[in-house]
Amino acid sequence: MPDPLPAVLDRIDAAQPQALDRLMELLRIPSISTDPAHADDCETAADWLVAELTDLGFEASRRATAGRPMVVGHGGEGGRHVLFYGHYDVQPVDPLALWNRDPFDPAIEQTARGPVIRARGASDDKGQLMTFLEACRAWKAETGALPCRITVLLEGEEESGSPSLVPFLRENADELRAEFALICDTALFDSRVPAIVTSLRGLLGEEIVITGPERDLHSGGYGGVAMNPARVLTRILGRLHDETGRVQVPGFYDGVGEVSAETLAEWKGLGFSAERFLGSVGLSHPAGEAGRHPLEMLWSRPTAEINGVNAGYTGEGMKTVLPAEARAKVSFRLVGGQDPLRLRAAFRDWVIAQIPPDCRVRFVDHGASPASRMKTDHPIFGAAREALSEEWNERAAFVGGGGSIPIAGYFQTALGMDSLLTGWARADDQIHSPNEKYDLASFHKGTRSWARILSRLA
Amino acid sequence: MPDPLPAVLDRIDAAQPQALDRLMELLRIPSISTDPAHADDCETAADWLVAELTDLGFEASRRATAGRPMVVGHGGEGGRHVLFYGHYDVQPVDPLALWNRDPFDPAIEQTARGPVIRARGASDDKGQLMTFLEACRAWKAETGALPCRITVLLEGEEESGSPSLVPFLRENADELRAEFALICDTALFDSRVPAIVTSLRGLLGEEIVITGPERDLHSGGYGGVAMNPARVLTRILGRLHDETGRVQVPGFYDGVGEVSAETLAEWKGLGFSAERFLGSVGLSHPAGEAGRHPLEMLWSRPTAEINGVNAGYTGEGMKTVLPAEARAKVSFRLVGGQDPLRLRAAFRDWVIAQIPPDCRVRFVDHGASPASRMKTDHPIFGAAREALSEEWNERAAFVGGGGSIPIAGYFQTALGMDSLLTGWARADDQIHSPNEKYDLASFHKGTRSWARILSRLA
Repeated sequence: MPDPLPAVLDRIDAAQPQALDRLMELLRIPSISTDPAHADDCETAADWLVAELTDLGFEASRRATAGRPMVVGHGGEGGRHVLFYGHYDVQPVDPLALWNRDPFDPAIEQTARGPVIRARGASDDKGQLMTFLEACRAWKAETGALPCRITVLLEGEEESGSPSLVPFLRENADELRAEFALICDTALFDSRVPAIVTSLRGLLGEEIVITGPERDLHSGGYGGVAMNPARVLTRILGRLHDETGRVQVPGFYDGVGEVSAETLAEWKGLGFSAERFLGSVGLSHPAGEAGRHPLEMLWSRPTAEINGVNAGYTGEGMKTVLPAEARAKVSFRLVGGQDPLRLRAAFRDWVIAQIPPDCRVRFVDHGASPASRMKTDHPIFGAAREALSEEWNERAAFVGGGGSIPIAGYFQTALGMDSLLTGWARADDQIHSPNEKYDLASFHKGTRSWARILSRLA
Repeated sequence: MPDPLPAVLDRIDAAQPQALDRLMELLRIPSISTDPAHADDCETAADWLVAELTDLGFEASRRATAGRPMVVGHGGEGGRHVLFYGHYDVQPVDPLALWNRDPFDPAIEQTARGPVIRARGASDDKGQLMTFLEACRAWKAETGALPCRITVLLEGEEESGSPSLVPFLRENADELRAEFALICDTALFDSRVPAIVTSLRGLLGEEIVITGPERDLHSGGYGGVAMNPARVLTRILGRLHDETGRVQVPGFYDGVGEVSAETLAEWKGLGFSAERFLGSVGLSHPAGEAGRHPLEMLWSRPTAEINGVNAGYTGEGMKTVLPAEARAKVSFRLVGGQDPLRLRAAFRDWVIAQIPPDCRVRFVDHGASPASRMKTDHPIFGAAREALSEEWNERAAFVGGGGSIPIAGYFQTALGMDSLLTGWARADDQIHSPNEKYDLASFHKGTRSWARILSRLA
């Protein structure tokens, strides 16, 4: 039998309009997992994907969890057995006023850098997961079968910390375990070089709620005598970093370690431009720890970021109130051997020690996952590197990941399975922001990339 | 002619139900001045008061300004010529969920401390201003005329910084100037002793808006490299006070001065209980400058308070975002000779000096008024002190005011007119908070108090 790959790639090229129609359908479903009001939409998205997988010959089903459902499909025979992972849930859309269109009414827009698909989830992660399904579709249409044994697992809670994933993996370990996991939720390096992610930062999410007086107080009647929770909160948050950008929580850097000189040299050789990277979002000065290369900051250094703060009166005009409560959402990106649960305890102790008389603090747990390091000596890494280098005409890079895709860690701990992460997003995709987009070129070449990788797994 | 006062007081007692009905009508009008959505309601409240004054024999009219209208009435002859000031606008009602009823559907509630009128504005300032009008009504009904020459000025922008008041006073100076102003917007001392306010803190309101990246960023993709405006804002706010509670803005204490040992002794003799004062709102530790008596902190020391903070994602769950913008509303209570405009400049300079590369700051002006000190040697102070001591069976106190009623200062600068401030609110009235109330006893004895004061001005 001749190599079917060239014909599969031709078929992908020819069927782009139909592939795009299918993606648009999926993007119209507002499957925001973090907002309970969108629970039904998540079920709709899951059902849509079950139908899609069934159409591709998978034995597919929607599987209930304590939260949003999983979609599982099994198909193909022979070759390597891989598990493909993507997520169908998306980030909230606020501030809605900053979108140039309804985030759930996707459209193709022409931009200076080529056509893009504009919609919430276009890049993170609906567009990406569909590149894999479209590659399967082309392969099936051309050869009558999937190229190898494939299990598909599509999650609906990735944007809200994946609370149901580990229980689901453990309960269905025998069904889901494969030789390797393929995870499609990452980006091209510098928006041009295909990249395989070899490490990922972990994530610890915490919400601080400080309360003081039993009700909001008039600042004329109480100001200067009553303790103001907003003063306490901002004082604590203002001490999170020192003057050089280092995080001040005791023990924060335990287990961090330094990357090897070799890896650092490889990263520095990638031609990364901090000016361009920051310039694309209107900035120019790296703000992390002094003396670190920006890629080092992103890929191998931990962070603390204030994601949200809310206290008192924030509407029109002024209200001279001492708020009864002040809240902040804080998240930490973790690296190396940082232990998220120990760090949570250290952070809480550090906050509690700064709470003055008359204030109380409570915490809301928003998830904790350790950093991951990939098994790059597995032959699948070499195979994928070759496949991607062919498709993109650039040698595929082994990169670090600044984001936290804890999935790879979960697959390792729950199923003893290693992962390969790649994807076709770009730095300007505005994921988690208004006006998210996915380049048509990413969608098209991403689909071709998966076809090339699959041909090597057959 | 015999002294009409006893008959006027009897009439006030007998007509309480009707007086209360009138107040309820006014409380049903949601005249929130700071929210443009309620502009029409402010006009409705003004019209209601014009009708009320007209009914009392005043020549009254609604007077347009650049913002909410003024109500002006002229009535009576002979005796001293006084200007009575009150305001018909009210504070916003959020958080609405904490109210035990619709804030604009007033009702009488029985409480452990007696019956109260529950509604936004019941105490601040609709209930208070109506005590004066009801005293006029009883006087007119009993004697056929007002007891002296009275000009009434009712404002609709007190809760939003009175932007139109000074221009209006200047434009209508000849019409509005009287011998003395009577301002009814203050409280009983310790909820029991009638009080005449002899000093008031000034108020400077500022909003800080810090912007950084041109859009919200994903903390995985940018965290650790991109500057986070919420980090910048909280760092600045966290430095507003030092460890002893002193405000750190350079020059902040210029012009503050110390009260005399004699005044301090008088204040300490008032039997003020910090435990009871703070305990009533669930607190126990004075939080102001170390080493100051709580009444000193409230009446003669300046403050800086954070009234509102808002940045990033504050909804359900977590969003790992670096916000593009962070905002805070900050207000300062001023005393003695502190110059609000100089202080505004110093505050802005202090903030600007802390803005790192890649962030910008802008400010929104929310008003600036200096502290006031009253002319207590004017005979009207002695007369009012006698009248109040009779009504309440407690020697009326000369007290400081922690709040900022800049009106007295405006009357002085725009009309060269001194003011006497008194009122019947109580510390637990929850003005500016959910569940605002006004004691029926305040409404009733307040009306009687004005009748007694007016009899001395006749």
